[in-house]
Amino acid sequence: MESEIKRTEVSSLGEFGLIDHLTKGHAMVQPSTFVGIGDDAAVIDHRDQLTVVSTDMLVEGIHFDLMYTPLKHLGYKSVAVNLSDIYAMNAMPTQITLSLAFSNRFSVEALEEFYEGVYAACKNFNVDLIGGDTSSSNKGFIISVTAFGRATSKNICYRNGAKPGDLVCVSGNLGSAYLGLQILEREKQIFLSDQTIQPDLENQAYVVGRQLKPEPRFDIIELFEKSGLIPTSMIDISDGLVSEIFHICKQSGVGAYIEESGIPIHPDAELLAIKFNLDPVTCALYGGEDYELLFTVDPNDLEKVKYIPDIYIAGEITEADHGIKLHTKGGNIYDLKEKGFNHFTA
Amino acid sequence: MESEIKRTEVSSLGEFGLIDHLTKGHAMVQPSTFVGIGDDAAVIDHRDQLTVVSTDMLVEGIHFDLMYTPLKHLGYKSVAVNLSDIYAMNAMPTQITLSLAFSNRFSVEALEEFYEGVYAACKNFNVDLIGGDTSSSNKGFIISVTAFGRATSKNICYRNGAKPGDLVCVSGNLGSAYLGLQILEREKQIFLSDQTIQPDLENQAYVVGRQLKPEPRFDIIELFEKSGLIPTSMIDISDGLVSEIFHICKQSGVGAYIEESGIPIHPDAELLAIKFNLDPVTCALYGGEDYELLFTVDPNDLEKVKYIPDIYIAGEITEADHGIKLHTKGGNIYDLKEKGFNHFTA
Repeated sequence: MESEIKRTEVSSLGEFGLIDHLTKGHAMVQPSTFVGIGDDAAVIDHRDQLTVVSTDMLVEGIHFDLMYTPLKHLGYKSVAVNLSDIYAMNAMPTQITLSLAFSNRFSVEALEEFYEGVYAACKNFNVDLIGGDTSSSNKGFIISVTAFGRATSKNICYRNGAKPGDLVCVSGNLGSAYLGLQILEREKQIFLSDQTIQPDLENQAYVVGRQLKPEPRFDIIELFEKSGLIPTSMIDISDGLVSEIFHICKQSGVGAYIEESGIPIHPDAELLAIKFNLDPVTCALYGGEDYELLFTVDPNDLEKVKYIPDIYIAGEITEADHGIKLHTKGGNIYDLKEKGFNHFTA
Repeated sequence: MESEIKRTEVSSLGEFGLIDHLTKGHAMVQPSTFVGIGDDAAVIDHRDQLTVVSTDMLVEGIHFDLMYTPLKHLGYKSVAVNLSDIYAMNAMPTQITLSLAFSNRFSVEALEEFYEGVYAACKNFNVDLIGGDTSSSNKGFIISVTAFGRATSKNICYRNGAKPGDLVCVSGNLGSAYLGLQILEREKQIFLSDQTIQPDLENQAYVVGRQLKPEPRFDIIELFEKSGLIPTSMIDISDGLVSEIFHICKQSGVGAYIEESGIPIHPDAELLAIKFNLDPVTCALYGGEDYELLFTVDPNDLEKVKYIPDIYIAGEITEADHGIKLHTKGGNIYDLKEKGFNHFTA
């Protein structure tokens, strides 16, 4: 006897019933969540701290492909990428709101799976889901998340505070999420051409995981606090290192150089890039979605940086007229272009 | 010589260029807007007040029809309906974030028109646009707005505070927005069957305006403050009076009756309902999108209610076991059903 997949139509619950069903039984954990889901609006109490707000929209077929993205991972990632923006302000996230639009292709069970991922992220990053909206769509799945955090004005890191002489630092490693996407796209094409072939993701767990389930670096933010380090500027790496360093340089009115030897690349990503005939450094410079942190620190804070694990010094801030350069291992100097790969420029 | 409509492709500006283009030159006006657009997140400073948050998603083909909705009106309405939720908490809105997804059918000029409406609403309701996201979509136009407001905990009105004996009050008049939609849908059908016929919206300006450009009742909230009145519960009327009174009764654990004679209906709406062979009272009870306020007040506050213009006493809160009833002009008593018209139940 074959096991049946249960399918409950969303219309059988109605909009309010669906929200109840998907959100009940999740207690609020943040002291600043004054009132959560269930009224015209939610209420946040950050007392004498500032409220930090970030919002993102994710559209099926543009930002994700449900052929290879499990809904639970998608729920987790939708929350994680927003929280990454809050961490990039050197703030601690506290709440999210979540709005969804979906066609009748999606059952209650599919939405439950998505919410499982949402709540896993809420639990992991200690935030409350306090509101949202659900709606029909004629086509596809659209997700809008707004994230809230708290910070003191003294601690907040903007993009405009970098000064010549500051060290350019990167957390974790870069390019892995991009290579994970290449693997998933390749397996999708193979599957589309012959549906009897099972996907071969073996030995690619690391890079595929980086693409499907990014983990914003709250650990680094916590260590900044512990070590008393406040970066002079910070941004999360969602569109690739080069794109982000351009944002910091433009908004701070400075230039920068990146040392090729200072760019952290995971060995799995390096091997895979070579297998795909791609340059690992180019993948690390232009590949998006690693959700690591790019930040600058005053050189006097070097000792504090050394205290924090998994931080790499990748370059230095210069005067604006110096431009934005790459120093290669071979001793050459190149201008970095804001857009690298053609397929990133849409 | 025919005048040409200018069409600039969004791709010619890029995502960051587009955001700059659409948002530049709009100064922040709210003292609590600490930092607006341009970083990973915006920053709000509500000091010793609470932050109230509400979010809505609007999807083309589900919530609006671009055949008869001018983009400028749509921009205005997208903001207005969210602010309505903030007012319904007895709070004053201060900021919004706006995320859009749109297909390449939309030009820069079309988006400019939409933003014109957004900024008109921002100006009218004195709120700052502090962040957002823009994205491609494969199909259609999707809008997600999150609105922020401030309030003291003493003043906030929830849905759960109504007590037996409280007066049920309604601002403005009901059913007009629903009848405006009927007009627009009729003219669309006529146009689709014969494109030489010009739409006949004459004498229907009021109801059509109520549908296309709703005005949330900040004036009422201001008068609550002035007269020292704090409703015991409040909700905005987006899904129809009956749907909203059910929310209040369910969350407050009470019943209610509505007096047919107490339901405010605009003369234009009344005439039009009759022309469409609809019952005006049913339109007022079940028609959505008027964005008026439904609230309950302690009977001792009756004098304060009288001080505020455009408020109608439409019934009374009762014990829960009494249910939710309509008292007709003819002296009959009916149970109100949560869903009225078939075409509202989807």
